Amino acid sequence: MASILAVGSVAYDSIKTPFGEVEEVLGGSATYFSVTASFFTQVHLVACVGTDFRRQDVQLLQSRDIDVQGLEYMDGQTFRWKGEYGYDLNEAHTLETQLNVFSDFRPKIPEKYRNSDYVFLGNIDPTLQREVLSQVEKPQLVACDTMNYWISGHCKSLLETLKYVDILLVNDSEARQLAQEANLVKAARRILAWGPKIVVVKRGEYGVLMFQMNFKSSLPQLSPFQGSVSKPVSSRGSLSVFGAPAYPLEDVFDPTGAGDSFAGGFMGYLGGVNRCDEQTIRQAIIFGSVMASFNVEKFSLDRLKELTFTEIQLRYKELKQMTQFEDIEEVSDPPQRPK
Amino acid sequence: MASILAVGSVAYDSIKTPFGEVEEVLGGSATYFSVTASFFTQVHLVACVGTDFRRQDVQLLQSRDIDVQGLEYMDGQTFRWKGEYGYDLNEAHTLETQLNVFSDFRPKIPEKYRNSDYVFLGNIDPTLQREVLSQVEKPQLVACDTMNYWISGHCKSLLETLKYVDILLVNDSEARQLAQEANLVKAARRILAWGPKIVVVKRGEYGVLMFQMNFKSSLPQLSPFQGSVSKPVSSRGSLSVFGAPAYPLEDVFDPTGAGDSFAGGFMGYLGGVNRCDEQTIRQAIIFGSVMASFNVEKFSLDRLKELTFTEIQLRYKELKQMTQFEDIEEVSDPPQRPK
Repeated sequence: MASILAVGSVAYDSIKTPFGEVEEVLGGSATYFSVTASFFTQVHLVACVGTDFRRQDVQLLQSRDIDVQGLEYMDGQTFRWKGEYGYDLNEAHTLETQLNVFSDFRPKIPEKYRNSDYVFLGNIDPTLQREVLSQVEKPQLVACDTMNYWISGHCKSLLETLKYVDILLVNDSEARQLAQEANLVKAARRILAWGPKIVVVKRGEYGVLMFQMNFKSSLPQLSPFQGSVSKPVSSRGSLSVFGAPAYPLEDVFDPTGAGDSFAGGFMGYLGGVNRCDEQTIRQAIIFGSVMASFNVEKFSLDRLKELTFTEIQLRYKELKQMTQFEDIEEVSDPPQRPK
Repeated sequence: MASILAVGSVAYDSIKTPFGEVEEVLGGSATYFSVTASFFTQVHLVACVGTDFRRQDVQLLQSRDIDVQGLEYMDGQTFRWKGEYGYDLNEAHTLETQLNVFSDFRPKIPEKYRNSDYVFLGNIDPTLQREVLSQVEKPQLVACDTMNYWISGHCKSLLETLKYVDILLVNDSEARQLAQEANLVKAARRILAWGPKIVVVKRGEYGVLMFQMNFKSSLPQLSPFQGSVSKPVSSRGSLSVFGAPAYPLEDVFDPTGAGDSFAGGFMGYLGGVNRCDEQTIRQAIIFGSVMASFNVEKFSLDRLKELTFTEIQLRYKELKQMTQFEDIEEVSDPPQRPK
């Protein structure tokens, strides 16, 4: 089991959805990440909060055995975000952002975290993401999140960061925007040329696609297809793809933090088992989907607070059952029709 | 092996995509369906064309061993459709529809097709769909397609048809529109209460979701979840879900006929193996996805004309490999963290 160094934001969110409304509840990318990852391994959190940060919120993190030595208290107010969702829960409408102490945040990695093997660079300025990396010794795996704001305004810096990143986690519109390419397979291929060995594309209710190149795989590779005009994905530059549907929910209550919870389940599992082969990464994607699906069932961290590992395992097995189909050797093949 | 009775439209399409343009090429829902299904079993086609229908187009159908005895030649012009796609290939913009002979079409099922076990009701007036059913004796499986036009304007008739349908094939916006419900799981549940035992929701580049209730399954059912506020999908009214991603393509050339090709691969496989248990239906969904993925690689039926069964099998195996992940019993579970 390996611990994870996680850097990102801790915030107070005010959120309105068609199903309810909350004011100043605990949120932030690093918060969702840490709490979900904490089900699988220990997390060393590096983030900043203001002097108004509530005692009960630190206690929540500590109750999950999250190491908060790297949680810096700065003079001023904690980062605040105010957002709203319509019935189409896929898109958040930001009403207000108060960066507060977050605008002066310069991540300082405590001495004892510097030899971390697993590093998660949450959605912060790509320059700060590199500052984090400059403070860790020799991580085994670096994963990175980002958003449209950094892609639009700080693309050069982001591309510099990507050189040092093993796994990039983005949603599909971010992947398309970053690569300037509408086709997702082509977009992933382009991003993979910039550094990351793996691109994990989150598609909300449509699930996840993972693209990977030149990564050690325990699976037999498909042999390149011959003698046809069609070019299977797997035959071109050994691009390997994994796809999984989202866990289908009848009641999505609040999508805030879904992406961060996905990342937490994903990295948490990798750290927990301390392996990064392709099969483990596929399993980690399923655990990420599971954690995201729980998180959106209630506001803030309310669902995660009461979640048990048994529930996580059950939903993993449900996704396994939900995606299972037999190979064609295992049944009588359909008769080949003439021509 | 069981043959399939397929009813729908045969048309001449004029299509413009960002990648090219064609005029009056062979198209229509029944055409795409028949040609794709013909890779798996024999198809008895019931449709109508005008006196302008080209000899080479009948020959194409016959070359696939499709029985065209039910292809009725009527006085007038063949159905014509003109459409355009932007770079977002998910949505067709209809420029012109000339129903022509199709507006007077009353499907007449030839005597020798009346004992068909597998019936596919293509996207036509739901009243005509019922007329077809009234002419067949005792089909083992009835699948049905529809579209927003019939949902908006002929909903009552469509609901009447659904009483006799085993499998409804729709895209996600159609499912939501039909059920008047934004959440897809709830929408599927509602539709399943109206007659169909299975709803297959096509989501284009996002793949397919299948919902099913009270259908014989060869798979062990998940036991209902206990002792939690979360209600897994499988525990409520024994709703079973299967999800599969679309085959990721780098070059989608023309999406016309993708849904019909999916239906053709899906029904074709079921007829070919003459089985309808849950595992076979899951495999049929994969074959449907495979056929749709080939179809969109070229205009009209151009890709299907040159397609081989070996290519189909290879792409099936690619999708199998692309969705495979290990269950958690098979690896060391992550340590359970303290609450």
